[in-house]
Amino acid sequence: MTADTSFGPNAAMADLMEFQRQTEALSSVSERLVWDQETMMPRGAAEQRSEELAAMEAVLHERRTDPRIGEWLDAADPETPREERILALIARDFARASAIPADLATEIARQTSLAQGIWAAARANDAPQDFLPTLDHVVVLKQDEANALVAAGFGGGDLYDALLDDYEPGATQAELAALFDTMRPRLVALREDILGAPDQPAALEGRFPQEMQLRLARACATAFGYDWNRGRMDMAVHPFSSGRWQDSRISTRVVEADPFNCIYSTIHEVGHSSYELGIDPDHAFTPLGRGVSMGVHESQSRIYENQMGRGRAFAGWLHQRMSDMMGGLSIDDPDAFYRSVNRVVPGYIRTEADEVQYNLHIMMRFDLERDLIAGRLAVDDLPEAWNARFLKDFGVAVDRPANGMLQDVHWSVGLFGYFPTYALGNVYAGCLNQAMRAAVPELDESLARGEADPGVEWLRENLQRHGGLYEPRPLIEQATGAPVSPEPLLTYLEEKFGAIYGL
Amino acid sequence: MTADTSFGPNAAMADLMEFQRQTEALSSVSERLVWDQETMMPRGAAEQRSEELAAMEAVLHERRTDPRIGEWLDAADPETPREERILALIARDFARASAIPADLATEIARQTSLAQGIWAAARANDAPQDFLPTLDHVVVLKQDEANALVAAGFGGGDLYDALLDDYEPGATQAELAALFDTMRPRLVALREDILGAPDQPAALEGRFPQEMQLRLARACATAFGYDWNRGRMDMAVHPFSSGRWQDSRISTRVVEADPFNCIYSTIHEVGHSSYELGIDPDHAFTPLGRGVSMGVHESQSRIYENQMGRGRAFAGWLHQRMSDMMGGLSIDDPDAFYRSVNRVVPGYIRTEADEVQYNLHIMMRFDLERDLIAGRLAVDDLPEAWNARFLKDFGVAVDRPANGMLQDVHWSVGLFGYFPTYALGNVYAGCLNQAMRAAVPELDESLARGEADPGVEWLRENLQRHGGLYEPRPLIEQATGAPVSPEPLLTYLEEKFGAIYGL
Repeated sequence: MTADTSFGPNAAMADLMEFQRQTEALSSVSERLVWDQETMMPRGAAEQRSEELAAMEAVLHERRTDPRIGEWLDAADPETPREERILALIARDFARASAIPADLATEIARQTSLAQGIWAAARANDAPQDFLPTLDHVVVLKQDEANALVAAGFGGGDLYDALLDDYEPGATQAELAALFDTMRPRLVALREDILGAPDQPAALEGRFPQEMQLRLARACATAFGYDWNRGRMDMAVHPFSSGRWQDSRISTRVVEADPFNCIYSTIHEVGHSSYELGIDPDHAFTPLGRGVSMGVHESQSRIYENQMGRGRAFAGWLHQRMSDMMGGLSIDDPDAFYRSVNRVVPGYIRTEADEVQYNLHIMMRFDLERDLIAGRLAVDDLPEAWNARFLKDFGVAVDRPANGMLQDVHWSVGLFGYFPTYALGNVYAGCLNQAMRAAVPELDESLARGEADPGVEWLRENLQRHGGLYEPRPLIEQATGAPVSPEPLLTYLEEKFGAIYGL
Repeated sequence: MTADTSFGPNAAMADLMEFQRQTEALSSVSERLVWDQETMMPRGAAEQRSEELAAMEAVLHERRTDPRIGEWLDAADPETPREERILALIARDFARASAIPADLATEIARQTSLAQGIWAAARANDAPQDFLPTLDHVVVLKQDEANALVAAGFGGGDLYDALLDDYEPGATQAELAALFDTMRPRLVALREDILGAPDQPAALEGRFPQEMQLRLARACATAFGYDWNRGRMDMAVHPFSSGRWQDSRISTRVVEADPFNCIYSTIHEVGHSSYELGIDPDHAFTPLGRGVSMGVHESQSRIYENQMGRGRAFAGWLHQRMSDMMGGLSIDDPDAFYRSVNRVVPGYIRTEADEVQYNLHIMMRFDLERDLIAGRLAVDDLPEAWNARFLKDFGVAVDRPANGMLQDVHWSVGLFGYFPTYALGNVYAGCLNQAMRAAVPELDESLARGEADPGVEWLRENLQRHGGLYEPRPLIEQATGAPVSPEPLLTYLEEKFGAIYGL
């Protein structure tokens, strides 16, 4: 009891935890800086902010590769499974960060920062040829990174898997490809049936003033249990959520002719933020104190936005609320309003896609980026490959590059391996929805009153509170009591849209 | 020309500059976090933010005391006076930071953080006895810090001077005491004459809606040349300015019955921010890229607020503007409005004091804190000493401790040596105003149109742009072409208030 614990394994554990605590706090500071940049920062401060973020990144990189971490990990003697898991996560981050030579890390940071600007200009000018040489450089650098990771034992010898592992630990391209191959034909068939149906839902018409949309967005965030005491909502060009533990903020945007844009991006970000805010406070400032993967994160934003937010029950509440605010709407009938919320229309743009077509956008990106990283597809051939694949999966030809391979920022900033986590998140959301509906039969009754609480509480209790305690797939399987499968999502989509479109 | 400069003095210089650049960027990040805390942060995030700020402080402390700085300083061979100055400033910061034992620095951070909360509660409860033991602990810690600094050669053997040096490099208590002794009798006499004058200005009456005050505050900030492209204005409980180079933000507050509170605290903060924004961009992210001292900083906020903002010319413009906005005011006549802006009334509170009485508040704090640090005054005797001195200088007895020694946060957070820089700033502002008026005879004509530009430009050209390039006193003397003296300030006050009160 009175033994000196200043030396030995316990001391190593304590030192490592204290070091990690500061690292987590610093990384949270960086995230807050990015939030500020996107919402508050004066226009003229861009250069200074990039200097500040680079300084933070340098500090964080130095800490993540600090050789003392290796010594502490060797000496530490974890006493509980939780401590073991914390050490495993620290060890993984340390091994990943240490695997990448400092010169390469710097070069990637520099090139992707440049590439993002070049991509934005190329998209604005609809000029892929201005971007392709830069993208080629980024691909080569990411291949170098993947090779370094593979050499350090990541990805089981596979370059793409070594990159994927950063966003979705444990996932492999083989497994995802198999999953997506099951889904693609059913989604393509569903899309074709929907677009060929004789009775198409009407679009909501009118202009919806910004002030009214923001009031509505606040009401929706409250309906989904967003904790305003630990968050806030601001405007941003691209809505996002930012932060953890006691401070996770959301942003939204307003398009006057399309209130659903504001409403559903708000509910989506509430899902992301509520995941972070729902993590057990004991995990704060440890590697357990963050969402465990991008896929699981997306499952939360999607189940809030789609399975709950775009369901008939909540749409009825929303219809009443909007009718009251606007003194009437172009769509009087709540059923017709529900159909309008879920309209499927042809489109080129991933971020504007509906529940049915969204995953098709992801799957083509997944296949193209796997080919790029493997060297099976040359960057110069990407525009043609993109357009051919789009025509095949969507039945229409891309009209211009800005609506094609230039539409997403991801590749320019080196996010190879990120795209599939969006579709995986939808699959997870399908599994979780099935289990949640079984466990919370009264959920729709509550959503019809504008209260998502029973669903939110089920998600918090079964998933969110664990943070990084379990690996993504076991976490979902533990929450749902069943193996991960695309079946619940596909069945949900076929039933929902079958009913809406009278298929 | 082709010599390898990777080794030798130039390499040391380059390495040190790069290291310093990151340190400056990180310190700017910390400042932005504090801004966020005071303006944007959700209420529930206090604990997390204190964790984040502590992590940043730990990183900054480690960098400020990094032994490589000593090696680089030894090896570096500055080639210009500017480089010499940069090295001198880095050397001073390094010596100060290294002089204080790490344990003591940690203990001061911990105790002052606690003490601030205890002070706030004691002030709310009007209970000095709840605060005195804590204050005593803080005083002892600051004496320890001062002793460590004196041992390292700071302050010329004087404890108080070693602390003062952090806020006003080169200033000494002996010199300040002599300065203040010249000023005190004339200010006391002026205050007595004013309060005894038969014709007292009327107060402006009415309620001024928040939205209107903020619109007015924006117009005033614009009138004083605030660069909205590199700044923004938000609400805060205690107005402050925050940031440098491309991003210096201001805050303000609104009291519905007192629009001058909002207007003049805005102009004050515009002065602080404009100083930072006015520094030559070449100095950015070096020790030259910040205001050189608290006294010089305060000279800018005060000359904007008082010598320009509360002058007859600008008051006339403000009167017109407010009359237009409100459709008439309780004071019709612009001369009477000008007198109202400059009303002198008895009061206990420093932050609410007018131009005449403000410095008297400072001088008593300066004398009391010098006695505390020297051990001539025991903390237990402070309330009595405060009240006796207040009665002597202001002619009235303090009614309750919250209006007496509990009113300011400074001592609780260990800011001993800070107070006198406020009065020194006023003295500097007096000197600068005299020179500026001589150089810019058309200034009042311009201020009467709501344009402070000629004054702002003179200040930028003669003072602000230099940042930390010169020590405070030489900087002022170079800008004014005359030795620093209290005479211009005293003459200005006697003439201005003599005219207003018909003395």
